[in-house]
Amino acid sequence: MHHHDLLSRLVHPAPGKIVLLVLDGVGDLRTATQFRTPLEAANTPVLDELAAAGSLGRIVPVATGITPGSGPGHLALFGYDPASPEADIGRGILEALGLGLQLGAGDVAARGNYATADAAGNLTDRRAGRIPTSECERVTAKAAAALGDLPGGRVELFPGEAHRFVFLARGDGLSAALSDTDPQELGVPPLAVHATEPEAAATAALVTEAVARIEAAIADEPKANRVLLRGFSRLPALPSLPSLYQMRFGAFAGYPLYRGVASACGMEVMPCGKQIGEILDAVTAAWDRFDFFFLHVKQTDQAGEDGNFDAKVATIEEVDAALPRLLALGPEVLAVTGDHSTPAPMKGHSWHPVPLLLHAPHAFVDDCRTFGESAAIAGHLGTFRSCELMGLLLAHAGRLQKFGA
Amino acid sequence: MHHHDLLSRLVHPAPGKIVLLVLDGVGDLRTATQFRTPLEAANTPVLDELAAAGSLGRIVPVATGITPGSGPGHLALFGYDPASPEADIGRGILEALGLGLQLGAGDVAARGNYATADAAGNLTDRRAGRIPTSECERVTAKAAAALGDLPGGRVELFPGEAHRFVFLARGDGLSAALSDTDPQELGVPPLAVHATEPEAAATAALVTEAVARIEAAIADEPKANRVLLRGFSRLPALPSLPSLYQMRFGAFAGYPLYRGVASACGMEVMPCGKQIGEILDAVTAAWDRFDFFFLHVKQTDQAGEDGNFDAKVATIEEVDAALPRLLALGPEVLAVTGDHSTPAPMKGHSWHPVPLLLHAPHAFVDDCRTFGESAAIAGHLGTFRSCELMGLLLAHAGRLQKFGA
Repeated sequence: MHHHDLLSRLVHPAPGKIVLLVLDGVGDLRTATQFRTPLEAANTPVLDELAAAGSLGRIVPVATGITPGSGPGHLALFGYDPASPEADIGRGILEALGLGLQLGAGDVAARGNYATADAAGNLTDRRAGRIPTSECERVTAKAAAALGDLPGGRVELFPGEAHRFVFLARGDGLSAALSDTDPQELGVPPLAVHATEPEAAATAALVTEAVARIEAAIADEPKANRVLLRGFSRLPALPSLPSLYQMRFGAFAGYPLYRGVASACGMEVMPCGKQIGEILDAVTAAWDRFDFFFLHVKQTDQAGEDGNFDAKVATIEEVDAALPRLLALGPEVLAVTGDHSTPAPMKGHSWHPVPLLLHAPHAFVDDCRTFGESAAIAGHLGTFRSCELMGLLLAHAGRLQKFGA
Repeated sequence: MHHHDLLSRLVHPAPGKIVLLVLDGVGDLRTATQFRTPLEAANTPVLDELAAAGSLGRIVPVATGITPGSGPGHLALFGYDPASPEADIGRGILEALGLGLQLGAGDVAARGNYATADAAGNLTDRRAGRIPTSECERVTAKAAAALGDLPGGRVELFPGEAHRFVFLARGDGLSAALSDTDPQELGVPPLAVHATEPEAAATAALVTEAVARIEAAIADEPKANRVLLRGFSRLPALPSLPSLYQMRFGAFAGYPLYRGVASACGMEVMPCGKQIGEILDAVTAAWDRFDFFFLHVKQTDQAGEDGNFDAKVATIEEVDAALPRLLALGPEVLAVTGDHSTPAPMKGHSWHPVPLLLHAPHAFVDDCRTFGESAAIAGHLGTFRSCELMGLLLAHAGRLQKFGA
């Protein structure tokens, strides 16, 4: 049984509100040259006060040693086991969510690359020289105009950054059981798309015809004259959060990918800016509308990806300074954590456990007096899988009945 | 899905080398009379320096409260869930590996005891008075000479220590679905062997005939005049480490059992002595040949089994003194741990978590300044199952891709 089904069986109503504040990639490292983590180095009087009055712990997004992408990292925070088949979000769908596209249950998305082939049709550059985004937009418009009526569905193209685009097939009875067309090597032509299951034959024919028309339209381009498609996928059929937990879930995230993942879980995605102040404006305006608030701050992850320790510290301090506004709303339960670590020294996501702060009426007041990675090791909450956090939030909000008599 | 299959999906190549140094049974206890563990009492400047620069944690070999044998303890370190059916190593196979026998996939091994029966055929001693090993060798040679041609396969006998021997059946289509012949009580005759599944009928007949010939040959022995067979088993069909993780695995262990388990997992087992110096000689000579090095030091476990605190301390200090030679080779990732605890006060294996030291470029520099059981409680790695260690080693070596996008 999925953990969320156990929780779902025990859910009952309660008035208090739950706030999950995700500082994307907040977890970081102490190394021989970085003696404190950004969270430890930042001046965070409010977070430290919350830590002193509540409990700390650590969460493991997927499993020991596994570095999660943003999709699995957030699904875990929302209570889904990210390694379970139900939570398998394909690359195409994530790319589409990242562009902010509205996706239907039957849509099939692939991540597209423009590529360069020589006169013989063999690939010479799988990324078309990383053409500028403006070029990508021009070429995509040209390709989309050539698609016309297709057999068995529609295909839409959406330009992304540089050589990337999203290939979206829409229609009845489409299947995502399709092979990639990217051969992952140079000197050979792109691969034909194949149905990997019989029911995908019609979709394969649709994609094949669409690719032929696209490539005919862009054949005269010096760089972006071929397309490579990867990660054909559909929205995962996740049980929705409101149906599982009998709460109204609101998502407050400024960036498309996180809005998309929240939407795929059944959250209502609210209009929202990207800065913590704008996020809190939106939360304040919608305080009566929801029981559960997912707040997403992206800048901690961006700073980590850039290896910019100071920027990560600055974002954390900015959040800390804004927190009194959130606390003034009176959340019953407040959790502050991340979807994964993005250590500045690594300039990328990592597998390291993520510190967690829980403030709630029945949180154990442990000995942690500051919010940080080292303090969290000794926190009352211990170290557990991110997908179990939802149960803890529900429990602290008084929303879970006793299990058994 | 097995955890190793998830890891396997994410594996990609990287240049750094991984060293797993297993101090067998190193974990120990603090008690009212043993104030420090051997690891804490030992003078270990090198391990302490590694601890200060890296992370500590603890691993649980099988599950809370479960005391592992050497087979499960090592399989867990190698990334297999020791409680899963695929990792089920039978007693017969372990005994055969412990004698250093080369086993084929179809071989069926049983652990044999010589026993004593009276004139009526009823058992009076299930261990034949624990005859000396030299007697065991003599009786085994006599029994083996009497086997001759058997129906449906060959049977080989290998003397062990005291009253123990290995019974090995070789041939086509053999099955290990056979019942034990040891009645586990005195005053009754040995049991007949039975096929527990229909396809084992022919093997049961082979074993029955072999036992009859053996017992006819040794009937005149005063003590070792009967045989009892237990734990019929075949090599487990484990997915091999090189195929799972795309690395070259080298095993450096002086004792047969560990060589055998490593071999059963697909490691290349190198010629190697039993002392740490000899082990490091072998590792140094083969440094370019492997990506993953399993080093096994047995003496910590032996000292624990003997209840010899001082000998355990001495072994740990010997290893510490030898470590600079290992470090000079430049491993990217070094883990020092045990397959289980063998506390000196208990004179045997135990279920207590095993301290773990991890030294790697992205190890979190936690507050642990010495390597020991008490320090490890507060280590950054926390407490987790031994079978998850492989994921951590791969992650720290840069050998795992991100999970999801």
